[in-house]
Amino acid sequence: MLNFKISPLSDTLNEEIKYKIDHKTKPLGSLGQLEKIAYQICRIQKTTSPRLTNPHIVLVGADHGICEEGVSPCPQEITWQQMQNFAKGGGGIGLFSSFYNMNLKVVDAGVDYDLSANSNIIDAKVVRSTKNFLTEPAMSKDECLKAIENGAKIVKELNQQGCNVIGFGEMGIGNTSPASILMHLYCNIPLEQCVGAGSGLNKEGVLKKLTILQKCIDRCPGISDPLEILYQYGGLEIATITGGMLMAAELGMLILNDGFIITSALLAAKALNKNVLDYVIYSHNSKEGGHALMMDYLKAETVLNLDLRLGEGTGAALAYPIIQGAVAMINDMTSFEQASITDTTGEGIRIL
Amino acid sequence: MLNFKISPLSDTLNEEIKYKIDHKTKPLGSLGQLEKIAYQICRIQKTTSPRLTNPHIVLVGADHGICEEGVSPCPQEITWQQMQNFAKGGGGIGLFSSFYNMNLKVVDAGVDYDLSANSNIIDAKVVRSTKNFLTEPAMSKDECLKAIENGAKIVKELNQQGCNVIGFGEMGIGNTSPASILMHLYCNIPLEQCVGAGSGLNKEGVLKKLTILQKCIDRCPGISDPLEILYQYGGLEIATITGGMLMAAELGMLILNDGFIITSALLAAKALNKNVLDYVIYSHNSKEGGHALMMDYLKAETVLNLDLRLGEGTGAALAYPIIQGAVAMINDMTSFEQASITDTTGEGIRIL
Repeated sequence: MLNFKISPLSDTLNEEIKYKIDHKTKPLGSLGQLEKIAYQICRIQKTTSPRLTNPHIVLVGADHGICEEGVSPCPQEITWQQMQNFAKGGGGIGLFSSFYNMNLKVVDAGVDYDLSANSNIIDAKVVRSTKNFLTEPAMSKDECLKAIENGAKIVKELNQQGCNVIGFGEMGIGNTSPASILMHLYCNIPLEQCVGAGSGLNKEGVLKKLTILQKCIDRCPGISDPLEILYQYGGLEIATITGGMLMAAELGMLILNDGFIITSALLAAKALNKNVLDYVIYSHNSKEGGHALMMDYLKAETVLNLDLRLGEGTGAALAYPIIQGAVAMINDMTSFEQASITDTTGEGIRIL
Repeated sequence: MLNFKISPLSDTLNEEIKYKIDHKTKPLGSLGQLEKIAYQICRIQKTTSPRLTNPHIVLVGADHGICEEGVSPCPQEITWQQMQNFAKGGGGIGLFSSFYNMNLKVVDAGVDYDLSANSNIIDAKVVRSTKNFLTEPAMSKDECLKAIENGAKIVKELNQQGCNVIGFGEMGIGNTSPASILMHLYCNIPLEQCVGAGSGLNKEGVLKKLTILQKCIDRCPGISDPLEILYQYGGLEIATITGGMLMAAELGMLILNDGFIITSALLAAKALNKNVLDYVIYSHNSKEGGHALMMDYLKAETVLNLDLRLGEGTGAALAYPIIQGAVAMINDMTSFEQASITDTTGEGIRIL
């Protein structure tokens, strides 16, 4: 079930890719992170002329038993209301995916509401909501594996339809709580640095949330198995996305990471197979809680600097046009040879 | 001549704009800087439904007498070679302006080469190259005023053609030297913090450049008049862009700032009329020299995090799709009312 075959990136074309980037009409390295992104995509696709095809945002929603403890100021009904909203092109992700010409798939992994009548929502519901992980595991091991399998299956189907670049989004009132615990356990970062304001807690609310989450952790002292961490404390949307990421990497797709929740799924995926990271581009710095520390932990450089904390995959969608720009650069920017410009790259000097 | 009439932004619609942004289906403030950008554009355009029309990058090139002192490792011929390259859609800015559907105008403000036969290059040449400002003023006062006037005229014509959003780019071997001095004199930041590697100087080269630029400054002790700073130490492309920015602000256009050189032109514009800043969005953090300190000085929040140092207006072009996203958000993202979602904004609680 968890036997994802993810190859580390090949080094075969490294010299050719570097040559192509370095002979564009610009000072060496002057396009900064854009050059690194182009280089990475070339290595993923094993070509010096990469293409991004049939781009998708896969937004996965679920509910969370931990909400019983009052960790979120929001009513849980907003989860299913927003899922319906996304499914008709509404919300932040409905807007941005459409605006940047990405396809949006909305997936129910465990919403506590019957969405089956909505034909625009993919039914991958394992169970209605996780359990309250203060007192019991959020999921059974089998439920967690089922969610991972569902995510993998959805991504495999999209890949068969020509999709080679994918971002994930999430919707689930309360899901900064599981994400904070996953961050704590996968990164070994003190819990208080992993807990933030979520959708709008005040200082007192954050302290209360921290106290509750500490009690949750105390239920499983010494826990370390990556899969057990995920089923004890994860969310159904998070586990589904974890499976989706692992399959995307197995299939050589480019993964656009998003904010706090999506990165918690990536941490789970990394714990299950570290090679997944080779396929990831980090879209933005979230304002939520420990996201900056997650980025440090992953040694990630982010593309956007927008202080987003909306979730839904909005950061991935907003970064997509920049990723397209990196691909356009390596394919279509003029080289010194084409432009009849003094090529100074061989002399150790560079053009301005 | 320098009598630009730039209105500070009106506060009349502030409440309406804020209401519209806050009633989108998202937690309050969760789209971070994107919300601030939308708010600013609404105030510039005096509407809650802004539009970006006929977007342009205006790339201005010129040569620099200070190159005689060996401040750049690049041969000056690259200035005119690149201008020809840009004019046929080449180079970084040729690629990115086209890719992001912006129009590109290439302007000769003082290139030391006859480009008049190229019908794709706007002739706004004041003189072939500035003088060597180690020993004499870079320009006469009249030449500087002429460059400012040229930039203003070009922007006014574009505005008459429906352009309401503009980014500026530059090309000019050696132009980090004037930009460093302008930064030093306009911001009162120590020169050594204003001098960087430009297009590829090593540490020794940077030190040599610093020594030379210090001598240049010593020629005019106590200089403080904004226009005199610009004609003593500026570049013809910089002065032209300064004029373009001031006119853009006068006409209520949105200005997309770029990297180190373009920001030095903005500093000149600000020194001449501080209201210009109300019309500016900061596209990216450059890796060059003192750009980060310039951003601090201007209290600027940047959109992109790409470590670019190419110039040419590439950062402005790369940020443009994100600015479009901010405008799409305020115009087209669903509101609570439209989406039938529990509106919690009035209760002091917010949705996730």
